[in-house]
Amino acid sequence: MASAEIITIGTELLLGQLVDTNTSVIANALAEAGLDVFRQTSVGDNEQRIAQAVSEALARSDAVICAGGLGPTVDDLTREAVAAATGRPLETNPAALADLQAWFARVGRSMSENNKRQAAFPRGATVLENPHGTAPGFALELASKVVVTMPGPPRELEPMLRNHAVPLLKKKYELNATIVTRVLRTIGISESEIDRLIQDLFRSSANPSIAVLAHVGEVDVKLTAKAESRRAALALIDALEPVVRERLGDCIFSANGRTLPQTLGAALRERGWTIATAESCTGGLIGAMITTVPGSSDYYGGGVIAYANQAKTDLLDVAPELIEQHGAVSEEVAMAMAIGARESFQTTLGLSITGVAGPGGGSAAKPVGLVFISVAHRDGTVEVQRRHIPGGREAVQQRAALLALMFAWQAARA
Amino acid sequence: MASAEIITIGTELLLGQLVDTNTSVIANALAEAGLDVFRQTSVGDNEQRIAQAVSEALARSDAVICAGGLGPTVDDLTREAVAAATGRPLETNPAALADLQAWFARVGRSMSENNKRQAAFPRGATVLENPHGTAPGFALELASKVVVTMPGPPRELEPMLRNHAVPLLKKKYELNATIVTRVLRTIGISESEIDRLIQDLFRSSANPSIAVLAHVGEVDVKLTAKAESRRAALALIDALEPVVRERLGDCIFSANGRTLPQTLGAALRERGWTIATAESCTGGLIGAMITTVPGSSDYYGGGVIAYANQAKTDLLDVAPELIEQHGAVSEEVAMAMAIGARESFQTTLGLSITGVAGPGGGSAAKPVGLVFISVAHRDGTVEVQRRHIPGGREAVQQRAALLALMFAWQAARA
Repeated sequence: MASAEIITIGTELLLGQLVDTNTSVIANALAEAGLDVFRQTSVGDNEQRIAQAVSEALARSDAVICAGGLGPTVDDLTREAVAAATGRPLETNPAALADLQAWFARVGRSMSENNKRQAAFPRGATVLENPHGTAPGFALELASKVVVTMPGPPRELEPMLRNHAVPLLKKKYELNATIVTRVLRTIGISESEIDRLIQDLFRSSANPSIAVLAHVGEVDVKLTAKAESRRAALALIDALEPVVRERLGDCIFSANGRTLPQTLGAALRERGWTIATAESCTGGLIGAMITTVPGSSDYYGGGVIAYANQAKTDLLDVAPELIEQHGAVSEEVAMAMAIGARESFQTTLGLSITGVAGPGGGSAAKPVGLVFISVAHRDGTVEVQRRHIPGGREAVQQRAALLALMFAWQAARA
Repeated sequence: MASAEIITIGTELLLGQLVDTNTSVIANALAEAGLDVFRQTSVGDNEQRIAQAVSEALARSDAVICAGGLGPTVDDLTREAVAAATGRPLETNPAALADLQAWFARVGRSMSENNKRQAAFPRGATVLENPHGTAPGFALELASKVVVTMPGPPRELEPMLRNHAVPLLKKKYELNATIVTRVLRTIGISESEIDRLIQDLFRSSANPSIAVLAHVGEVDVKLTAKAESRRAALALIDALEPVVRERLGDCIFSANGRTLPQTLGAALRERGWTIATAESCTGGLIGAMITTVPGSSDYYGGGVIAYANQAKTDLLDVAPELIEQHGAVSEEVAMAMAIGARESFQTTLGLSITGVAGPGGGSAAKPVGLVFISVAHRDGTVEVQRRHIPGGREAVQQRAALLALMFAWQAARA
């Protein structure tokens, strides 16, 4: 089995100013490709120390994967260090330089001398293109070994890793075992509850293996199978998935990589429905989530952020008496907001939320974390749910927005 | 200056199943204590590899700080590895064993044979107590060097680091210096542009040192000073800050840890002003950012997410002819939206954005990433700015929302 090491580069990592999330992303991709990761090292922005770390890693392992230090500043020294560690001089790559110049022209910024350094690579390196930034990566093959170097920003690194680095490593080391992961994304259920419901499967199932990974408001259940072909790996997963679904049921909103906003969008699109939002405590976050999806204008009419009561009355036609009688955070007001959103934007569904995001504004009757979420339908029916969400202000807002999307999806897929 | 290395231990780190957050916590504490962290390494649960990493680190640096692998399972091998690397046999510590027995009695669980391993330490080690779990840490002094070993769970590691490891290191290496960092947060300027403007300061200023750190849409400039007292360190920073400000000027929005929404909120609050939003391409994200701040209801009236043109007309009173004539993404429509937001919510300022978030919908005249941001004032004046933002859909949305907050802040602080 080919071995690999990861080197993440940046003084900020050694000052504790930044958590290194790249290592876990790279490690996960390498493990899935079938490489054995032996060690991970972080070094600062110091040419000699980077070069030493690269030399040591090359002496121990087959593949050395570096992240960071490819920017345009004087602190970005990974190119120079890899050149020094491998004895390959840096040479400007004309195609990469032209790409870089085109990038600057496109965004209308002037290109500094420093930026030109980003088009220099150790002799013999393959350039890995970076459509998301100015720093291309590179792969330098040295007989049975290889050094792959990628930029540090995750949104630049991740596509380069997936599209260039992993395919190159799989080809070089003839990694034919296929590892397939299917992520069952859940919402509205806690990690420990999932654990309780499927813990026997954890133990009994080695291939596919099961892992549970919690994010804010969402928990992923990963089924990972290893087999000689993609087809065989998928068959293993297909056999296990129904067992997991039987336990977790309605909480699973995606098995195909779709986010919750994408899942909601697909359901709306399938029915030819549209939706509008009325948000209080989430302040626009539900709209922002819906509109992360390209083409969401096809089904999203828009929304009202009714933070002040006046806005609820003026823009959503919520009767002032309703607010006086039940309070702004109430079932009644949530329902009126959902109806108001539907009518203002002339959509099929209206989705509303009102609640106490905290840290202030809570009371015994209406504590911090209490939210009411409502969905108004075309036929005049209105659903409303009351939930109590734990956590600090931003976590409450995130989770509340995701719950609202879940309710909307449940209404749309019905 | 005493040097240090961090070793984090756990196979899950090398499989990418867990993000290593301990490194940044330890690195930050060491930097503040005045130690120079040279390198960080992660290795799996393998005695020989842990021992090798510890030996290498001891050969390079003064202090080696390990985290993880102190649990009771067969995979927990850090004790054995440190013993092997330093040639000190493991010996059971009777006091630690008694503590462990008392802990199990207190929580009403039975103590297994495996757990007893947690009371064994390399000969000569000082035991570091762990009130939050069963795994004590230990420090093993070797002439001018020291190996400190702590458990991996953050809620066990962090108190042990603060209460035992850092004081021990400060005493051993006579570290009396205080390190103070001030972060100047900037917006609307790129990392490479900042670098160009202050690169001479980078080189000339060693204390305070300057570091530049890019996030999505924001770049931080960190000034870190080291001195014998907090007061002296602050004086060093106070002397450098005006020089940096002179170069970067208006782009700096915070020097006190405030986020951009907090900075905007403080400026509005100071003037007794309020604001409303009208968002197209950001879909509610500006509102969501503003409302991350507790108490933002004091100055945020609310917003309209005018995704469809109909919504711009109906809810923001944008004349349909304006959209027909100039298009929804235009200076004219941005201005009308800002005016509409102000009027709908009866606020001091109206803030609007319209643009092409992509990936579809762009044209030669109005490419993906083009946005118009407008601020309407109470006196009837309306400002508008045109910007072209690079990146994918979500990056464009994030950066556009931050730019909009910046313009609002510049309007409010004037």
